[in-house]
Amino acid sequence: MRKLSNAELERKSVDEFKKSDKTPLIIVLDNVRSLNNVGSVFRTADAFLIEAVYLCGITGCPPNTEIQKTALGATDSVVWKYFKTTLEAVEHCKAERCKVYAIEQAENAIMLNAFTPDANIKLAIVFGNEVKGVEQQVIDVSDGVIEIPQLGTKHSLNISVSVGIVVWDLAVKLGIGRRL
Amino acid sequence: MRKLSNAELERKSVDEFKKSDKTPLIIVLDNVRSLNNVGSVFRTADAFLIEAVYLCGITGCPPNTEIQKTALGATDSVVWKYFKTTLEAVEHCKAERCKVYAIEQAENAIMLNAFTPDANIKLAIVFGNEVKGVEQQVIDVSDGVIEIPQLGTKHSLNISVSVGIVVWDLAVKLGIGRRL
Repeated sequence: MRKLSNAELERKSVDEFKKSDKTPLIIVLDNVRSLNNVGSVFRTADAFLIEAVYLCGITGCPPNTEIQKTALGATDSVVWKYFKTTLEAVEHCKAERCKVYAIEQAENAIMLNAFTPDANIKLAIVFGNEVKGVEQQVIDVSDGVIEIPQLGTKHSLNISVSVGIVVWDLAVKLGIGRRL
Repeated sequence: MRKLSNAELERKSVDEFKKSDKTPLIIVLDNVRSLNNVGSVFRTADAFLIEAVYLCGITGCPPNTEIQKTALGATDSVVWKYFKTTLEAVEHCKAERCKVYAIEQAENAIMLNAFTPDANIKLAIVFGNEVKGVEQQVIDVSDGVIEIPQLGTKHSLNISVSVGIVVWDLAVKLGIGRRL
């Protein structure tokens, strides 16, 4: 099977991306330290036509050389906003009638594979700091917690990998396949 | 909802991991340059009880400080082997009766969301170099190509994110949820 050239992939221009219907999903980064992770999240958000990325607290913002290394230009297509605190971002999402879920390991969390999103309600998904995870006070004001079930020896996944897994899983459930 | 402490997660010890039934999946890394990516792949492989990671060509191997930074010890639990060339790794997989699929964008690729694995046949999934992707000659000897559908402006995802998406998608389809 012949590999396709980049030109054959017929990707969108930034203008076409801006005008496209988006996956009704906002990614909220709660004090993410690594700029490589932030850049990688932008690239994932671009691939799955995510509505916006909200960068909170110590999370770095574009333009930034380190973010650019992994975003590779995806900061031009994907809409982003900065909030001083993650709580402010969550309040903003709620005012926009999003349902807010934190990705964490908590009592009564719903396993990602068992979670069914309602396509008529926009989702905001909060991903936490590399060490501390999502702050408890952010969880307290969220509508729920979704957990990525893990069966090995380690306690968590890399944050950009978690974003990829959750966004892919939800985008498929929200019918991204219908657009292909 | 109260966050769980690491102790409450009741993760496996390395010994328990070694003795556990594995997800029938081998990850093959075809000349992956970034040691951060390699480490992150180990962490994902640990989380989803992957059978083995095959490191090929220029792909770095443990023990390595850069791999350790993102693997965080997952190189102790996950089985790995090194092959001088990816073609050798693929031959080895075929001798072990695996079906071999490359993750690429190619003519007649199957979209990941449309791909249904057969739980009775072990899969080997080849992920390519950050710039070049999977080599054409590796694709030529594979049983098929699986594509992660992407709708944005960029041509590809970060390789550790791609591994996360594909491993999660296949692990769920292979029934990882039944063990939770």
